[in-house]
Amino acid sequence: MKLRFRPYELQLKHAFNLAKGSRSTTPVMLVELEYDGVIGYGEASMPPYLGESHETVTEFLNKVDLSPFNDPFQIDDILSYVDGVEKGNNAAKASIDIALYDLVGKIVGQPWYRILGLNPDKTPMTSYTIGIDNPEIVRRKTREAKGFRMLKVKLGLDNDQEMIETIRSVNPEVDLCVDVNQGWTDKEFALDMIHWMKDKGVVFVEQPMPKAVIDDMAWLTEHSPLPTIADEAFQRLSDISLFKGVYSGINIKLMKSTGLREAYKMITVAKALDMKVMLGCMTETSCAVSAAAQLSPLVDWADLDGNLLISNDIFEGVKVVDGKVTLNEMPGIGVKKVDI
Amino acid sequence: MKLRFRPYELQLKHAFNLAKGSRSTTPVMLVELEYDGVIGYGEASMPPYLGESHETVTEFLNKVDLSPFNDPFQIDDILSYVDGVEKGNNAAKASIDIALYDLVGKIVGQPWYRILGLNPDKTPMTSYTIGIDNPEIVRRKTREAKGFRMLKVKLGLDNDQEMIETIRSVNPEVDLCVDVNQGWTDKEFALDMIHWMKDKGVVFVEQPMPKAVIDDMAWLTEHSPLPTIADEAFQRLSDISLFKGVYSGINIKLMKSTGLREAYKMITVAKALDMKVMLGCMTETSCAVSAAAQLSPLVDWADLDGNLLISNDIFEGVKVVDGKVTLNEMPGIGVKKVDI
Repeated sequence: MKLRFRPYELQLKHAFNLAKGSRSTTPVMLVELEYDGVIGYGEASMPPYLGESHETVTEFLNKVDLSPFNDPFQIDDILSYVDGVEKGNNAAKASIDIALYDLVGKIVGQPWYRILGLNPDKTPMTSYTIGIDNPEIVRRKTREAKGFRMLKVKLGLDNDQEMIETIRSVNPEVDLCVDVNQGWTDKEFALDMIHWMKDKGVVFVEQPMPKAVIDDMAWLTEHSPLPTIADEAFQRLSDISLFKGVYSGINIKLMKSTGLREAYKMITVAKALDMKVMLGCMTETSCAVSAAAQLSPLVDWADLDGNLLISNDIFEGVKVVDGKVTLNEMPGIGVKKVDI
Repeated sequence: MKLRFRPYELQLKHAFNLAKGSRSTTPVMLVELEYDGVIGYGEASMPPYLGESHETVTEFLNKVDLSPFNDPFQIDDILSYVDGVEKGNNAAKASIDIALYDLVGKIVGQPWYRILGLNPDKTPMTSYTIGIDNPEIVRRKTREAKGFRMLKVKLGLDNDQEMIETIRSVNPEVDLCVDVNQGWTDKEFALDMIHWMKDKGVVFVEQPMPKAVIDDMAWLTEHSPLPTIADEAFQRLSDISLFKGVYSGINIKLMKSTGLREAYKMITVAKALDMKVMLGCMTETSCAVSAAAQLSPLVDWADLDGNLLISNDIFEGVKVVDGKVTLNEMPGIGVKKVDI
């Protein structure tokens, strides 16, 4: 198996204004894993707040030696080895996981949702993200998002209610979810906001409080009329049972989970613990988004719009049709490379 | 997809003497699922204490209508439908699950352990069962079991210590595990026995107390120097989180779990909850045993000797070599039919 990789810079269509900072590009690493003439594609996306970068991913991938493995079907051994190369580096690890699943799926000749026995008609709606901005831009973005049945509203600065009211002034009907990105620090304030949000048609609340807050977060989840979803608080499989009772559910992202192998286990475990499951993404090309989408028939909500937020995607894969994640019949993770 | 089935009666090499009764045959149902000229094999095994029989399985399978499904890859939908046909009937459900996995694996052209990315070298040792009997027969069976590295000793009558001492008189070295089949009703007695067992080289204790006992069982697990494994107490995925802290681990059997689909989820969940996993079987042909063996690289211990206990197996599949579950390269669940 041959591993190749090259850095790439994603251009965002709209700059992101989050509770913590703003940016207009996201670095990614494009990965190829070749075996017997078949190429599997993978990707690492490195939003700066997670601490990975072109440099760290390059360093990690250079340490990975796949020469002892001569059978790509040894997914468990290969990815256990990769996971053990060094702590952290979750996006770098995900890039190999995704490429390996793409490779094996192509050898088998089936997309992964079929190999896993899932019904492609059962994919969820995906939300489209509206970043924090002034009312004029928020109104424009809301209009642009007309094809979506759920909008994900970024909150956590000082204009939360204004954001929601601006969106409602353009589209009073669409389902909303909100991502507070750890922005609320007082539990009583958070609960008041959630009650207000519920009246505005919000269906769940992501990461309302800082990730280190446990007791107040459990209190909030107990009293909240809406499900609470852990995002920044939560990375990998071993975290899930700790968060039962603290949040109503989890947002699984391949770049946190180290890829499809662990994400699939996480979905199984979260559902067995009666927790809600959301499948999210970073700003990514259609490569990583399509990989995640293979698992999407299993989850409650998807937020797989990362590829729609960029202007220089180099893959074609999963589509959003009438707001719904729509899988294709291509084998592996369901992508092909396109020239731009 | 065409579903066919016929009743069959397994002849045991040695009559089974258990804590509750004795028997020399086990009824099974042999199932075939045919699609596009490919045949998947499945099996239901109905030891009488689980309440299924040729009659109940026939009745259940006659209610199953697969005509709305024209794609065997829709495993999730098909098996969700089957599970919903009626409550219980877990072995009958498993027979369809196994046949469907065999069928899909054959279409893909790979054995399931490969599709799931597992290393066939990592299969566990499997134990060989020594039933409750008089010292002479126990000595003979222990000698016959020379090729195994772990023996599973059935206990729960009034000769527990005699059973262990008889085996140790023939083989002082082999690892032992014990299956009490709910035979100990007093927790202090059970703890004393476990301490005694530990000194005799026993490595875990299966179902020491009656399945309905929860608090005393949790006390026993807390104080036990050996892992405790739930068998009769435990059937399906939804039970696992209830048993965290009550037992150290679980014994997963396809005939209880409704087949491979749920067994695979159960392994994932149990491991995420830091519970031990044992993969067991009923008296079955090599069909159901080989199906379970596809998952065996994931588990701590296997007890997959059901096919070795019968004299009229009609399948050839997984083997036990030097006490170790040994997978083959045949696609699907890895079996072929043989004439007897």
